[in-house]
Amino acid sequence: MNQISTSISPDEIMGVLSQVEINTLASVDSKDLHETLRRCSLAVLNCGSQIDDSKVVFDQFKNFDISIHRRSRGIRLDLINAPSSAFVDGQIIRGIKEHLFAVIRDIVYVHNELQNSTIDLKASPQITNAVFYILRNANILHPGVDPNLVVCWGGHAINRTEYDYTKEVGHELGLRKLNICTGCGPGAMKGPMKGATIGHAKQRHRKGRYMGFTEPGIIAAESPNPIVNELVIFPDIEKRLEAFVRTGHAFIVFPGGAGTAEEILYLLGILLHPKNKETPFPLIFTGPKESAGYFEKLNEFIGSTLGSEAQKKYKIIIDNPEKVAKRIIKDIAKVRNYRRKQSDAFYYNWKLKIDENFQQPFIPNHQNMASLAISRDQPTHTLASNLRKAFSGIVAGNIKDEGIRAIEKHGPFKINGDKDIMLALDHLLESFVAQGRMKLAKNDYKPCYHVIK
Amino acid sequence: MNQISTSISPDEIMGVLSQVEINTLASVDSKDLHETLRRCSLAVLNCGSQIDDSKVVFDQFKNFDISIHRRSRGIRLDLINAPSSAFVDGQIIRGIKEHLFAVIRDIVYVHNELQNSTIDLKASPQITNAVFYILRNANILHPGVDPNLVVCWGGHAINRTEYDYTKEVGHELGLRKLNICTGCGPGAMKGPMKGATIGHAKQRHRKGRYMGFTEPGIIAAESPNPIVNELVIFPDIEKRLEAFVRTGHAFIVFPGGAGTAEEILYLLGILLHPKNKETPFPLIFTGPKESAGYFEKLNEFIGSTLGSEAQKKYKIIIDNPEKVAKRIIKDIAKVRNYRRKQSDAFYYNWKLKIDENFQQPFIPNHQNMASLAISRDQPTHTLASNLRKAFSGIVAGNIKDEGIRAIEKHGPFKINGDKDIMLALDHLLESFVAQGRMKLAKNDYKPCYHVIK
Amino acid sequence: MNQISTSISPDEIMGVLSQVEINTLASVDSKDLHETLRRCSLAVLNCGSQIDDSKVVFDQFKNFDISIHRRSRGIRLDLINAPSSAFVDGQIIRGIKEHLFAVIRDIVYVHNELQNSTIDLKASPQITNAVFYILRNANILHPGVDPNLVVCWGGHAINRTEYDYTKEVGHELGLRKLNICTGCGPGAMKGPMKGATIGHAKQRHRKGRYMGFTEPGIIAAESPNPIVNELVIFPDIEKRLEAFVRTGHAFIVFPGGAGTAEEILYLLGILLHPKNKETPFPLIFTGPKESAGYFEKLNEFIGSTLGSEAQKKYKIIIDNPEKVAKRIIKDIAKVRNYRRKQSDAFYYNWKLKIDENFQQPFIPNHQNMASLAISRDQPTHTLASNLRKAFSGIVAGNIKDEGIRAIEKHGPFKINGDKDIMLALDHLLESFVAQGRMKLAKNDYKPCYHVIK
Amino acid sequence: MNQISTSISPDEIMGVLSQVEINTLASVDSKDLHETLRRCSLAVLNCGSQIDDSKVVFDQFKNFDISIHRRSRGIRLDLINAPSSAFVDGQIIRGIKEHLFAVIRDIVYVHNELQNSTIDLKASPQITNAVFYILRNANILHPGVDPNLVVCWGGHAINRTEYDYTKEVGHELGLRKLNICTGCGPGAMKGPMKGATIGHAKQRHRKGRYMGFTEPGIIAAESPNPIVNELVIFPDIEKRLEAFVRTGHAFIVFPGGAGTAEEILYLLGILLHPKNKETPFPLIFTGPKESAGYFEKLNEFIGSTLGSEAQKKYKIIIDNPEKVAKRIIKDIAKVRNYRRKQSDAFYYNWKLKIDENFQQPFIPNHQNMASLAISRDQPTHTLASNLRKAFSGIVAGNIKDEGIRAIEKHGPFKINGDKDIMLALDHLLESFVAQGRMKLAKNDYKPCYHVIK
Repeated sequence: MNQISTSISPDEIMGVLSQVEINTLASVDSKDLHETLRRCSLAVLNCGSQIDDSKVVFDQFKNFDISIHRRSRGIRLDLINAPSSAFVDGQIIRGIKEHLFAVIRDIVYVHNELQNSTIDLKASPQITNAVFYILRNANILHPGVDPNLVVCWGGHAINRTEYDYTKEVGHELGLRKLNICTGCGPGAMKGPMKGATIGHAKQRHRKGRYMGFTEPGIIAAESPNPIVNELVIFPDIEKRLEAFVRTGHAFIVFPGGAGTAEEILYLLGILLHPKNKETPFPLIFTGPKESAGYFEKLNEFIGSTLGSEAQKKYKIIIDNPEKVAKRIIKDIAKVRNYRRKQSDAFYYNWKLKIDENFQQPFIPNHQNMASLAISRDQPTHTLASNLRKAFSGIVAGNIKDEGIRAIEKHGPFKINGDKDIMLALDHLLESFVAQGRMKLAKNDYKPCYHVIK
Repeated sequence: MNQISTSISPDEIMGVLSQVEINTLASVDSKDLHETLRRCSLAVLNCGSQIDDSKVVFDQFKNFDISIHRRSRGIRLDLINAPSSAFVDGQIIRGIKEHLFAVIRDIVYVHNELQNSTIDLKASPQITNAVFYILRNANILHPGVDPNLVVCWGGHAINRTEYDYTKEVGHELGLRKLNICTGCGPGAMKGPMKGATIGHAKQRHRKGRYMGFTEPGIIAAESPNPIVNELVIFPDIEKRLEAFVRTGHAFIVFPGGAGTAEEILYLLGILLHPKNKETPFPLIFTGPKESAGYFEKLNEFIGSTLGSEAQKKYKIIIDNPEKVAKRIIKDIAKVRNYRRKQSDAFYYNWKLKIDENFQQPFIPNHQNMASLAISRDQPTHTLASNLRKAFSGIVAGNIKDEGIRAIEKHGPFKINGDKDIMLALDHLLESFVAQGRMKLAKNDYKPCYHVIK
Repeated sequence: MNQISTSISPDEIMGVLSQVEINTLASVDSKDLHETLRRCSLAVLNCGSQIDDSKVVFDQFKNFDISIHRRSRGIRLDLINAPSSAFVDGQIIRGIKEHLFAVIRDIVYVHNELQNSTIDLKASPQITNAVFYILRNANILHPGVDPNLVVCWGGHAINRTEYDYTKEVGHELGLRKLNICTGCGPGAMKGPMKGATIGHAKQRHRKGRYMGFTEPGIIAAESPNPIVNELVIFPDIEKRLEAFVRTGHAFIVFPGGAGTAEEILYLLGILLHPKNKETPFPLIFTGPKESAGYFEKLNEFIGSTLGSEAQKKYKIIIDNPEKVAKRIIKDIAKVRNYRRKQSDAFYYNWKLKIDENFQQPFIPNHQNMASLAISRDQPTHTLASNLRKAFSGIVAGNIKDEGIRAIEKHGPFKINGDKDIMLALDHLLESFVAQGRMKLAKNDYKPCYHVIK
Repeated sequence: MNQISTSISPDEIMGVLSQVEINTLASVDSKDLHETLRRCSLAVLNCGSQIDDSKVVFDQFKNFDISIHRRSRGIRLDLINAPSSAFVDGQIIRGIKEHLFAVIRDIVYVHNELQNSTIDLKASPQITNAVFYILRNANILHPGVDPNLVVCWGGHAINRTEYDYTKEVGHELGLRKLNICTGCGPGAMKGPMKGATIGHAKQRHRKGRYMGFTEPGIIAAESPNPIVNELVIFPDIEKRLEAFVRTGHAFIVFPGGAGTAEEILYLLGILLHPKNKETPFPLIFTGPKESAGYFEKLNEFIGSTLGSEAQKKYKIIIDNPEKVAKRIIKDIAKVRNYRRKQSDAFYYNWKLKIDENFQQPFIPNHQNMASLAISRDQPTHTLASNLRKAFSGIVAGNIKDEGIRAIEKHGPFKINGDKDIMLALDHLLESFVAQGRMKLAKNDYKPCYHVIK
């Protein structure tokens, strides 16, 4: 395994840090902060890797380190034992260099401005503000621009046919000058960006945006690909999900596994909230004809757990990239009109109601997983919220460092609840396993969960 | 007096504000904040005015108001009874529009991030950090760029010959692709920018920077001229002065009045600090040959109060714009080398020692003015600090709203101290009055101070 | 007199030349071409000079030379004994460097593409095409842009009050984002550009165009100032004048001397042509109140020679820059509508009828001057044409190299014609002399003409 | 087959045309010119088509037409019955729009400036100049830039594995910020551009150049893909080939058919000229491991016809995109040094000797094909020239409109010469046919040639 130690010399893309900020990142007193920096930096440098197991990644590069120094022209980064795939002929790839600085920017900002401040991150409106401030600090929010951002969700471990299909959809979106936002990483998170890059090139749309939203827990498993030209690292999965739904103007879901299911349930839970009834919110599930069965299964699961009301929130389009893109264009026009009427910002969906239980960080440990209330005796959107947490736990058990270690120690998570829901859930999860959607290493998947039927 | 009421429609230059921020600026609960916004906005819109008396300006436009609204494309400003000089054929001048948004940006930032935060603004390093954060938030600090920023100080009420001279110096600086930073306003703060604009045009230097640093107390008397393309409003005069000395790479002082004397004393006080002994710090006093006498007087005053050590900190160049510019180029090279050796940032002079008594806000009321310790039984740099405060009070009494009202109520400030210093001070101030350097309305200047001899 | 010999190293602004083109410019066989290059280059480098006598300029720098060499990165220029005023600290001013390459570009183009081609430059439409091709090659014609180009004419030898007035008018035009085109040189050709530069800076109009149209005969007397960012050298005065009237959208005439009168007569002669009767063509004469008498005299002369019809073609506005700019805005809107209706290009006034006798080069030698038909027994626009030639001759006799030499040898030009016209002409010329409008060196003007009364 | 009739409204990308030029393109008198315009426009609009048979394309769209009109903002194009694939939701793809204007630009230029001029296109240096002028007019030649242009040659009808390989090579080139130039069209001409686009995106290399050089005879069979952002249409294949070798800094040949063989022979013929012996000229043949056999055959053919000297001119690298890219970087450095030493332009290889028989247009009719001198009793580089003509004829017979019609009428071309060469040739051509490299429609290829053995 090739490794490179080098200095990234300062240039104009680097932000400027105060001496206090540099010290904080370097300090032994702020060990957590430095470790977060180290792990996120490693993740960013490790792009192109075929491993989605954070633990393996961290073990593989346990000698990797990063340090920050002030220089006259800005800050300089020293990398020790960095993955060589981030370099071309000894030079770091520019896109990855930008990612490194995005990591520093966001870690510093979240630390200084949010965690150190008087803002109370317990209250729902404060969380929404915090997400806004992180995005604003990352220069993601552009005033004066019409809605054009398509969030693409889907698995990191999809097959070649599905991957090519995500590229084609991205190409059609790019030809229509739409921008792409995904969760970073390979598979359905990379394909649409590649396709859009070619589409934008054909349209001479030189300011194409390829946004990646991630968080420290997942980034090592789903390294941002260097095409991403606006990377944001949120402090946790909940703020990351809120960022998606408040900045995106339309949503496309490709085939995926547990993470994709988490995203879908998160979204449906929000859209089912009575206060969001009137809000136009384009949501399309799509894949090649070979994946039609996947969406049938998913649709069934949603129908049997959340009901037909939930099924009305999305549209399934099979094997027709052009139709997907045309539909998106049409539906975004509705979003535009609605926001205008409401004087709501194009760049941030302030009016969308997000319940606090979608915002509060869910820690996927054995106890929390076991005590999830997955039953029908609660409002549907609350059920959706709890189901989403179940999938969040499975993602952690599959690919996140802490989750993997917990499973190794305590065995699979136990998930309990209404019997029919458990049956449906088990059925869906089995199909994910059968289709190899859980992890990149497909052959020997060992479930990190146990559904109590 | 012509007034216009209109809406400034949102466009790409406008920052994005959270709903909380908009509410804060609009709220009756945050009356001070809204009033600061109102006054600074008025000052910005009132550029080109021939009045440097803040009180008169505020009385003249007491019906002026501004409000902020959220729109889909960003924020919209409503202006009521704004000075018509800010408009061309009913359209606001773009430069002034940018200034309005700079005002909002800085007021919001100072309020949210500094005053509301856990940062302790009493401690010296924290103040230095705060100045850094305000500058960074205003996008003033550009990494990767060689030192090139010349701070130009001097009076707002200078004569035509002196004004033309400041333009010529600006032209020579512009031809050498140097950027300009001043305190905003007319006279010596506008001339160098105009000259540099022409110089930059000849050199096709399209990214010329014309920075204006101001604060709410002075801005109404010294409205930023629309050439200023980077405006920052600091919370008080002390942070503004610190911003000048930490961002500027070279300093030119043109003839001026009490404000200019304040700036010179501030600077000399800092440079006389033992810790700054080795720091290269280019400082040139210059004017047309007709103003040679002015600098003689000033040099004498400095010699007799702070001594010959202080006189070594600057160089006087009379009637030779080209020589000034060449000297600046040569001296900035030394700054560059020194910073490199120290690994200190080009964009912020972290290593310069500024004593806390230069940083703590001085409130120029009758009591504080009367109790200034202006005597030789203290280190020279402390004496400089106290002398600087005396001039700060005179500026307030001359042109700041609060100061003028205080003088109206309680009569002139009393300034006391060592007899010989008082004599020198009185002598200098008399020459300022005689040369019409105190206010724009020159004929009937009535001193706002009384030097006790 | 300071001189510098140096190489201008290649960079991205330089065009690319074929080996044939480089050889042609260097060749002894193409002596005229090299001499034209040498003279125009000298003129460009000599900007800022206080001499408007081409002969003196050429004598002063008779050792100046320029040569062109091919280098890997483009062409390199070697300058020998160049005026040092073109340099700042040994570096050529960028604007002047661009002018040097404009000179080469236009000389090569005119030589290769026009004089060497099969195009017959005798026929009127071919001349109009040639002017178009020269402009296109110089990248002057921008499609897709609304009319916004104001041609400013007026004397190079105006007084300070008039000069300041031209700056104020330029400032008002610049605030309205209008672009400026003049004949290059000092006085009324420089003031509007300076003013517009400041106006554009205030409006953040970063793409302000400051166009200068000149020709080899006049350029040495009226060096382009470095603010000019689009310089074109036409082969002769007639093509230069046609370029003005076909690219400009509005015309302002400031006070001036013989050259200005030539321009006015050229324009009136064209506007009086029956075919141009309906064409909207904004034309304003303006100056400070001190110059009101000048325009009275001019208006009288036009009235008495070309009649009241001619007087209706322009509007005189005294001492009101804002009114001038507002009027221009209003009138350009008419031009825009008219061109739209006619499907005529915004960037080139194809439909304007220009008679061949306005297009054919007039050689101002003693014989041609003496045989000018200045009488009423011809259409008014033909009379205007001949009067314009008379003034063209006077300009040559005043400041052009060949003209000056001819006068030195053969004495003043003789101008003959209808008695009353001769009286009016003599009266006007006398007033020019009395007001010091003929040359920069005002004290000892010796007329180069003799009007036979 | 979908067709669209529409107007392309003017915008800033359109050049400006004189009235004469518009008339010429529209005129019935200039039928050839209009027909060339019509055919090239159709080819450009027909991108993405799966047909490489010009005759079929022209027959399919025989109702297609284009007309040009002058509008105030520039020229407007009217398209009648255009292929709908050029449009997205009724809007023309921007890249294709630019291609349309490139077509007009080059047709007008070649007509006006070359064919109508006094330049004698018979002489070798004049042809080299003409190629230079066409490139300069198309703004292809950028001074001040280091060598970075890689010409990629190869077949339009390659298989998926080979296509993916060309993308990978392009990706590696793009990561090294190299630019790409190809002959336009699908296959090996599109893959490297797609790969480089992604590579450039990763490196934030926003000014990536994807140049396409084509000519009216081939363009319909090899429509430029819209990624091409600099398209040039040369008047004939010989000038197109000369453009490649004089602007490119390194050359990569992927697997291909007759056209690729033509290009290789053209190049080897030039490189074998004694005067080019010292000139560094990077040339790499590369393909995936599945294509190793192809290059063996080719290498054998070259060895047996042109000898081992010719074989030394290139390097074969199999299945290693990174190695190819690294080698190119290394070899281009040599080109850079050589040109510097020679003071030869980076942007145009003036010093390369190209014999007139490589420059004079070869008309591939039956008579010319039959009389080709393919024998050893001539210098090797002349033999190469004649062999290249043989392949040129085969390309014409395969995919060019005129060629196909000639073959339909008179049967296959006859190719004669030295027996062993004929055997080698026949062998090579058979392998092309067997591997499906002759045409996109692979199944029923009917040779357009007959090698007389």
